[in-house]
Amino acid sequence: MPIDPRHPREIRADIRSGKFAGITAGLGPGFVQANMAVLPRDDAYDFLLFCQRNPRPCPLIEVTDVGSVEPVGAAAGADLRTDLPRYRIYKDGALADEVTDVKAFWRDDLVAFLLGCSFTFEWALMDAGIPLRHVERGCNVSMWKTSIDCRPAGRFHGPMVVSMRPIPNEMVAKAVTASARFPGAHGAPIHVGDPAAIGVKDVTKPDWGDAVEIKRGEVPVFWACGVTPQAVALASKPAFMITHSPGHMFITDIPNSSLAAF
Amino acid sequence: MPIDPRHPREIRADIRSGKFAGITAGLGPGFVQANMAVLPRDDAYDFLLFCQRNPRPCPLIEVTDVGSVEPVGAAAGADLRTDLPRYRIYKDGALADEVTDVKAFWRDDLVAFLLGCSFTFEWALMDAGIPLRHVERGCNVSMWKTSIDCRPAGRFHGPMVVSMRPIPNEMVAKAVTASARFPGAHGAPIHVGDPAAIGVKDVTKPDWGDAVEIKRGEVPVFWACGVTPQAVALASKPAFMITHSPGHMFITDIPNSSLAAF
Repeated sequence: MPIDPRHPREIRADIRSGKFAGITAGLGPGFVQANMAVLPRDDAYDFLLFCQRNPRPCPLIEVTDVGSVEPVGAAAGADLRTDLPRYRIYKDGALADEVTDVKAFWRDDLVAFLLGCSFTFEWALMDAGIPLRHVERGCNVSMWKTSIDCRPAGRFHGPMVVSMRPIPNEMVAKAVTASARFPGAHGAPIHVGDPAAIGVKDVTKPDWGDAVEIKRGEVPVFWACGVTPQAVALASKPAFMITHSPGHMFITDIPNSSLAAF
Repeated sequence: MPIDPRHPREIRADIRSGKFAGITAGLGPGFVQANMAVLPRDDAYDFLLFCQRNPRPCPLIEVTDVGSVEPVGAAAGADLRTDLPRYRIYKDGALADEVTDVKAFWRDDLVAFLLGCSFTFEWALMDAGIPLRHVERGCNVSMWKTSIDCRPAGRFHGPMVVSMRPIPNEMVAKAVTASARFPGAHGAPIHVGDPAAIGVKDVTKPDWGDAVEIKRGEVPVFWACGVTPQAVALASKPAFMITHSPGHMFITDIPNSSLAAF
């Protein structure tokens, strides 16, 4: 994948001006990329509480002030209406539009939630010398709905979604400790080993993403996945919701390393 | 101080029945004790966001469903109206009453916030062999308002309050790592050394609590303090608020050790 080593500020300027509208993998390496969910203030309390109660699938990086388009903690000066390459607009829980800026959709009662994403802990895993098959193969990670229920909050409830990476036996402990340092990006695995124990019936058939081989001497390791909050929010059919399009993330000014808990 | 080694469930039963109404230091050793702030739903979004933005002074352990008196995550079966030894009732930001149960004050629109407290990390410090002067002397810890502003959220804003413990030079690093393991109980120190750097003008004159001597070869180490959220909430003069009385905490069923982040 192509690497763009410029500061996120410069990359966001290209996105804002319309020069770039692609997926963000490989852009601004070393900086935290974020999932985005935007909801009206009326739904924001329940969603904030849902994230607080389910920090592994829903690690909050930033919650904007009502109506504000600027995530002052994660990227001062950025504009969340224009600085993501692609957005999805949902009405009553159904996809209504896919656009490259949301100026026409913005309202004074909207709250934006930025949530950590797996790029950060995958960087930590690779930095620790752990190979990631979906990265090597250039495909998407495998994801499943599990039998683990999130703790509900108000109108929001649903199962946890996980991603799976095959990890060589001798590197499982390292994969746990390396990712545990980043609770702001899903943290330690939710489960190590037997897929059936968390309701994953067929590890060769993911619910989302691409299947990858689990070789002899490898263990399937499962992490909570940022698909969870979007899936949960949409399942409750909110009247209005904006999200990033899959793979088209918000690139923050936060270095991955500064997200480390210890 | 007297130690009551029974399970928190039994201690809470004594508190509920009126058998016990004193301070909770030494009760249920090994279990997390929590600060409590109860606010109407109208103020709860801003307060929840304030906690999310300021996790060091405001580490959330549990947020109840609107109107519910049961903190299902922290102590299933408990009743927050009766299971704390002593409560304070505030009206328009002023102390209106101090009572041993709040059944007469409970309303269907109330949300209870339970926040981690310093007992947990003090247990971790002592367990690591670090002496705590205020515990040895049997007095209260020293606390100050600082020049560090919390990140505001809606109607809530104000300075961070810290507690200070003198730590022997050679134990400072250990004090940092031992407390860092417990982000749910204020985590690592906010500041190590020079009090003036965080706006503490006279380290012999605390704003709250008791002064303790800093001996030669000791460093003043400052942790974010659970007085912060109450001070911040009261400064905004909410129409109605219930808190625990100082030292009269809610004793949860969560073992201190299970609050460890790593």
